Amino acid sequence: MENKHVGIFGAGLVGTLLGLYLAKRGNKVDIFDRRADLRLTGVPPKTGRSINLALSMRGIEALKEIGAYHEVEKVAVSMQGRMMHDPEGRLSFQPYGPNGESIYSVSRTALNETLMNMADKDPRIKFHFNRRCLELDFNTTNATLLDTEQGGTETYHADWIFGADGAFSSVRTSMVKTDRFDYSQTFIEHGYKEFTITPGDNGEWRMFKNALHIWPRGHFMMIALPNPDGSFTCTLFFPFEGLPSFQSIETRKDVEEFFLFYFRDLIKLIPDFVDQYFASQPSSLVTISCFPWMRGNSMVIGDAAHAIVPFFGQGMNCGFEDVRILSQMLDQGGSDWHTVLNEFQYVRKVDTDAIAQLALDNFVEMRDKVANPSFLLRKQIEARLHRYAPEIWIPTYSMVTFNHMPYSEAQDRGAWQNAILDEVMLDEELNEILTLEDFEAIVWEKYVAPAFEELDNIAEEMEVPRERGR
Amino acid sequence: MENKHVGIFGAGLVGTLLGLYLAKRGNKVDIFDRRADLRLTGVPPKTGRSINLALSMRGIEALKEIGAYHEVEKVAVSMQGRMMHDPEGRLSFQPYGPNGESIYSVSRTALNETLMNMADKDPRIKFHFNRRCLELDFNTTNATLLDTEQGGTETYHADWIFGADGAFSSVRTSMVKTDRFDYSQTFIEHGYKEFTITPGDNGEWRMFKNALHIWPRGHFMMIALPNPDGSFTCTLFFPFEGLPSFQSIETRKDVEEFFLFYFRDLIKLIPDFVDQYFASQPSSLVTISCFPWMRGNSMVIGDAAHAIVPFFGQGMNCGFEDVRILSQMLDQGGSDWHTVLNEFQYVRKVDTDAIAQLALDNFVEMRDKVANPSFLLRKQIEARLHRYAPEIWIPTYSMVTFNHMPYSEAQDRGAWQNAILDEVMLDEELNEILTLEDFEAIVWEKYVAPAFEELDNIAEEMEVPRERGR
Repeated sequence: MENKHVGIFGAGLVGTLLGLYLAKRGNKVDIFDRRADLRLTGVPPKTGRSINLALSMRGIEALKEIGAYHEVEKVAVSMQGRMMHDPEGRLSFQPYGPNGESIYSVSRTALNETLMNMADKDPRIKFHFNRRCLELDFNTTNATLLDTEQGGTETYHADWIFGADGAFSSVRTSMVKTDRFDYSQTFIEHGYKEFTITPGDNGEWRMFKNALHIWPRGHFMMIALPNPDGSFTCTLFFPFEGLPSFQSIETRKDVEEFFLFYFRDLIKLIPDFVDQYFASQPSSLVTISCFPWMRGNSMVIGDAAHAIVPFFGQGMNCGFEDVRILSQMLDQGGSDWHTVLNEFQYVRKVDTDAIAQLALDNFVEMRDKVANPSFLLRKQIEARLHRYAPEIWIPTYSMVTFNHMPYSEAQDRGAWQNAILDEVMLDEELNEILTLEDFEAIVWEKYVAPAFEELDNIAEEMEVPRERGR
Repeated sequence: MENKHVGIFGAGLVGTLLGLYLAKRGNKVDIFDRRADLRLTGVPPKTGRSINLALSMRGIEALKEIGAYHEVEKVAVSMQGRMMHDPEGRLSFQPYGPNGESIYSVSRTALNETLMNMADKDPRIKFHFNRRCLELDFNTTNATLLDTEQGGTETYHADWIFGADGAFSSVRTSMVKTDRFDYSQTFIEHGYKEFTITPGDNGEWRMFKNALHIWPRGHFMMIALPNPDGSFTCTLFFPFEGLPSFQSIETRKDVEEFFLFYFRDLIKLIPDFVDQYFASQPSSLVTISCFPWMRGNSMVIGDAAHAIVPFFGQGMNCGFEDVRILSQMLDQGGSDWHTVLNEFQYVRKVDTDAIAQLALDNFVEMRDKVANPSFLLRKQIEARLHRYAPEIWIPTYSMVTFNHMPYSEAQDRGAWQNAILDEVMLDEELNEILTLEDFEAIVWEKYVAPAFEELDNIAEEMEVPRERGR
């Protein structure tokens, strides 16, 4: 058993899960949060973060490994596909996979509480709320903490300190000031506002429950995720500036016309949509990238190391996978945390960069392409290829969501498949062969097999200089 | 005349020049610096910044416009080309241009003092030293200043505040905390250390005076710039890690062997090179990018907005050009600074991004390619094309250094020329036609003219949808 003294900043999803993992390994864990205990305050903290989240395979695996999934499952609502809403309110359903593959809508607060309650049962874990990290000294692993309730500061020391304190991490803020620390924060031109569809009179869901609802509108979109209480949380992703935008929609009349034109079927489901629109300012969406993740005996993890935009539903799943992989590497790597954590950051950075880009790409797909007939045909062809060779051809969405291959592998394989699909879509005989029973075999022989051959050739060529070099 | 009250943070090169420009326009200017007055302390501040700088056309234009070049010229040493030193100490000279085009080595401190002395003569400018900006409120344009000498803070207010406070700008630090502010800091894997070649016994330069000396060594290099007192300042650009690197060279013997192998001709010129090597820690090299540059009535400018690596000798020149262009736009744009400065940041950002990339690219050229025979042939061909059509074909280095076209135009035209040179270098008859008298005309007809035609076609194609759209 390990016997380190570990401080974790951030009692959110990743911080608490990391605490559970590290305590299970035998370490003494302090978890600090700058806010009060959300189980006592009763309201979700207003931090511009979404109310619910899509939990999928990578997150589930990490929860299962620590024994937390059993509890989480009870309050999760399965979503088996995308339900598209066109401007006239017509619906079409696109299942996520041929075998009922699902992702799960969970409440951020409920999930956080579940993990915190579990942590409370472990005597090696102690929570400290209302403590803000003002400064972290990487030479001494001493943190200066501000008591945000009582005032006054104290110095905290641990063997290792983790920053699991989110996109605007205070641990990372101390790292950014150190020499040779690469850092970027990049905002997209869209922000978001949330709306609530309340449950029906008998607590029923007023749209199809088991789907992620999407209103794709080209340069912007609305989505909705079901909650266990019969409500839906809708999120409008919309440009800050331009026409139309949060800036251009100024009056109650503007909002009414906007919904009437783009979201007609939501008007009866959200009767007070105008009030809800004006109830909040739009929140921004950022991608954070930094390296290294480790300074001295301190490390950032989760959003603090690699916040991404939400369009692949992978922010939390990726953070949970960070924790699972870190723990796995500690299992294999022995007791020298410095070596293991250093290796972890190099291995994992490639994959978090990949999901950051995939998440940006998926926004374009969700808001724009899914309403395009040629894109839908392409997706159908891809689904047929997947059924034809389910182990070899896996759509990118499935590689990310229903698989645990490294994100960077999903990105590479997805790019390769997309290049093949580009060719297939340009095939002059496509309409004729589409109806043939052996369509998949024809495509495989004509496009996929040659692409594999090319891969082999490249691999061979890359071998040659190595051989010569010997 | 304008009559604004302007605060400038940073009494360095760009801050002081900006003060001179804005005061000349009629504004009242306060210039703050966190350090003491460098004219009193007598020593250059140790901030990991280079001792001397290469002043070229863009910087000279800005100095001329404000009437400062006359003074600067007196202490500048002209450099008419690159003097390459090979490992055996053999020299070869590459002139910058066919007409004696030169850049000028100037002392950072001397130039700064010249500008400050000029500013002292303008009653509208007041310097405030030992004042560090702790926080800037963009809603009120109030800055919290710390008196670093006496202690204590004060609030300073101005109509406009400029952050000309360098790569690690405190004004920008306040901006980074605001919503939707894009920011990145990216370090390269190389750092640098400076060495001094002292003057000869009679105050003479111990290498050829009027050149920028380069010791290209593949993955690293040494350079040297002449100083007016007969000395040279050498800078070793060298990886932090790897073999060889600052990390791998640990002992006095390591340094001796390293110089003996790579910089043999420097050993007699810098007899105490081992001591000089160990006298300082290596400094890092960073590219800073951010946007917007303006928040409320505050703006960052120069390195604070766009620090670049030094390999094109454009950091200061670019910052000076910022000031000149800003002033030009104020001349043309009327009294609404908000509109003019907003336009300035959009126009200028494209160009500072371009020079940031060109500077990174030029490091590879300086340290590696300039020692490559095929690259030298390529440069010769380019020089011949330049002489053949001096207005049309201008080498990238000249477009950046001896011209004031926008950096982005230099980058675009350079990429286009490079693509043509790639083809020329692959010409199977190159060796034969090289010796022909009408070589330039042949290349022009075979490669350049078709490339121009292609440009015309692209331009035409791009017109079509616009026409249709009408």
